[in-house]
Amino acid sequence: MKVIILGGDGFCGWPTSLHLSNLGHDVLIVDNLSRRNIDNELEAGSLTPIQPMGVRIAAWKERTGKVIRFVNLDVAQDYAGLLALIEAEHPDAVVHFAEQRAAPYSMKNSRNKRYTVDNNVNATNNLLAAVVESGQDIHLAHLGTMGVYGYGTAGMKIPEGYLKVEVTTDDGKRVPQEFLYPTNPGSIYHMTKSLDQILFAYYAKNDRLRITDLHQGIVWGTNTPETNLDERLINRFDYDGDYGTVLNRFLMQGAVGFPLTVHGTGGQTRAFIHITDTVKCVQLALENPPQRGDRVKILNQMTETHRVRDLATLVAKLTGTKVAHTPTPRREDAENELFVRNDLFLSLGLEPTTLEEGLLTEVTEVAHKYADRADLSKIPATSTWTRENQPGDPALVEPEAVG
Amino acid sequence: MKVIILGGDGFCGWPTSLHLSNLGHDVLIVDNLSRRNIDNELEAGSLTPIQPMGVRIAAWKERTGKVIRFVNLDVAQDYAGLLALIEAEHPDAVVHFAEQRAAPYSMKNSRNKRYTVDNNVNATNNLLAAVVESGQDIHLAHLGTMGVYGYGTAGMKIPEGYLKVEVTTDDGKRVPQEFLYPTNPGSIYHMTKSLDQILFAYYAKNDRLRITDLHQGIVWGTNTPETNLDERLINRFDYDGDYGTVLNRFLMQGAVGFPLTVHGTGGQTRAFIHITDTVKCVQLALENPPQRGDRVKILNQMTETHRVRDLATLVAKLTGTKVAHTPTPRREDAENELFVRNDLFLSLGLEPTTLEEGLLTEVTEVAHKYADRADLSKIPATSTWTRENQPGDPALVEPEAVG
Repeated sequence: MKVIILGGDGFCGWPTSLHLSNLGHDVLIVDNLSRRNIDNELEAGSLTPIQPMGVRIAAWKERTGKVIRFVNLDVAQDYAGLLALIEAEHPDAVVHFAEQRAAPYSMKNSRNKRYTVDNNVNATNNLLAAVVESGQDIHLAHLGTMGVYGYGTAGMKIPEGYLKVEVTTDDGKRVPQEFLYPTNPGSIYHMTKSLDQILFAYYAKNDRLRITDLHQGIVWGTNTPETNLDERLINRFDYDGDYGTVLNRFLMQGAVGFPLTVHGTGGQTRAFIHITDTVKCVQLALENPPQRGDRVKILNQMTETHRVRDLATLVAKLTGTKVAHTPTPRREDAENELFVRNDLFLSLGLEPTTLEEGLLTEVTEVAHKYADRADLSKIPATSTWTRENQPGDPALVEPEAVG
Repeated sequence: MKVIILGGDGFCGWPTSLHLSNLGHDVLIVDNLSRRNIDNELEAGSLTPIQPMGVRIAAWKERTGKVIRFVNLDVAQDYAGLLALIEAEHPDAVVHFAEQRAAPYSMKNSRNKRYTVDNNVNATNNLLAAVVESGQDIHLAHLGTMGVYGYGTAGMKIPEGYLKVEVTTDDGKRVPQEFLYPTNPGSIYHMTKSLDQILFAYYAKNDRLRITDLHQGIVWGTNTPETNLDERLINRFDYDGDYGTVLNRFLMQGAVGFPLTVHGTGGQTRAFIHITDTVKCVQLALENPPQRGDRVKILNQMTETHRVRDLATLVAKLTGTKVAHTPTPRREDAENELFVRNDLFLSLGLEPTTLEEGLLTEVTEVAHKYADRADLSKIPATSTWTRENQPGDPALVEPEAVG
């Protein structure tokens, strides 16, 4: 397959590019390096020493003999460039990771709210419009988020994208219906993935585009078999309060002895997936595309659910670090249950990588190895959802020992 | 009340501005004149001789002694200007009409798809972000569309925004739930109003903004008591295939003897409202805002439903014009039923202006009066939804006499 990967320089995009290239696919990365530029803006970089794209691609060729091409292009801004690329390349599939992906970053201020909406919606719409204009039958696989569902249900497992209900007609009959699951996003970032869903549903209906939307949980872990081949291929590791995802952040905090910053009671239950499974899921999605005329194929790309305070306890015991129950910077429920179906990926052969001490230690070792690159002042989550919320700053509370 | 009207130069915005000013409210129009600029682009203008904003405002002051102010500002692009305006004015309410509003225009080509999405989403998000940043408690009333619902139901009337359903939990219990009605837009334009809904729901939840969304039917008629006060106050009348709405287009075609262009069988049932009721509904919405912390208040702003072929027959008989059943440029169901609740506006005191021969004649007379301004080549709907659709061109078929 020839696959264009939009956002192929990012945390999920880069290991996905390597994985697909390793399988023998012809991979072309498109990225405007926005994630690296946001590092500059936030004055907080990857804990791991990621290499420039030129070095990454050269190292990959040196190690495997395989060629990954790279085009620096802003998908949200440069429609003509994107269309020309699709027309020249005739890809079998496009994987779309080209969106601003941090909830706290999206909530920091009006500028970031506006950038996130503008960038993410226009990137998606440009891609869809360009595929229609090209007249090509290209499978689009998009990285969505479990966050489009929200984190509460009426007692049923969250289905894969579509909810079965009964409506009562005016003459009293109950009629079964199936809809896109009613969205309830928890941040401007998550909301943009809800907007994407509407765009996908529309283009699938009107233009019969073949689209897969992957509602992914929170990714943890750093490396995959491919990024482990050479230190120059190493993946990003974000530990800061904006881009660091909760479990990786805890593991890094544990490695450097920084109190684990749990927002509120830590009663939030979230869905998780290891980065190795992320890249496998994208592979499985590409190997099993929907048919032309199908509705959008939605898969829940997660393997297990955990409560944040349980993760904190686990990491605290593993590393001997204290836990700090900070104020919560987010407007969210303090406690929630979460039950999720992920039957589709299991039926396609995914063997989930679950939370194991060995894997946790592996991440802690990565964090330990590069600890001298960390700026610990960047760890607290300072972006607040409203004026009433307070930063997730451990200096505001007394950290507690666990277990 | 001090009211800012975004898009106050347009077909709905202008008569709404006059109506609210006439009631004694302090009205400030914000508009970038995009609708007039699109006239230039399409080489098709208003049938009625609309005056520049300066003339309009001067005539209004001359006739009534009332002052309407005007600021030329692009809400989707100039966030800083919008925020500064809100901070300086402290409005009680903002009415948001500042969106590209024609389905055919939005489907014409990739450029128009992208402009419509970019303009409409960013206008809405800029407004929401600016109100949050201002810290002010401003009521936002937005003009949505009945088209967000789509035109099919399982047999129940379309509710006002929220659908009551039952879901079955994993242990077999039926649980009642109420969701935003599952959206099913029929064009890129309509889709942007579906996107708006998600934005409104999010900001109402996270920031407790007070928001009313008015899901309006197809507007017909031209003038209101206020625009009738002086010819310089006259409202737009669009008759072209992109911006002309179906009933007004038929009335104009009848006035000039151009075959009534019915797409396909004309079995499409749609919701309608007269322009005089549009402005009253906005007034009623502003007088009955939601409370802080409420979910978005959604009202169906329509008064009756009609099948397109029935409207064609009515106008054909009234004017002695033939009917041309053209190919349909849209991807849509050829036939549909439509039952809609509009209890909320009725309960607020709206007395619907329904289709009457007198009113129909009034519109035909306006069309007749300005017929020499028309470019009849602009009447057919040439914008097609997909490559498989054909233009709604009466030259492709044999027009038929009716009755």
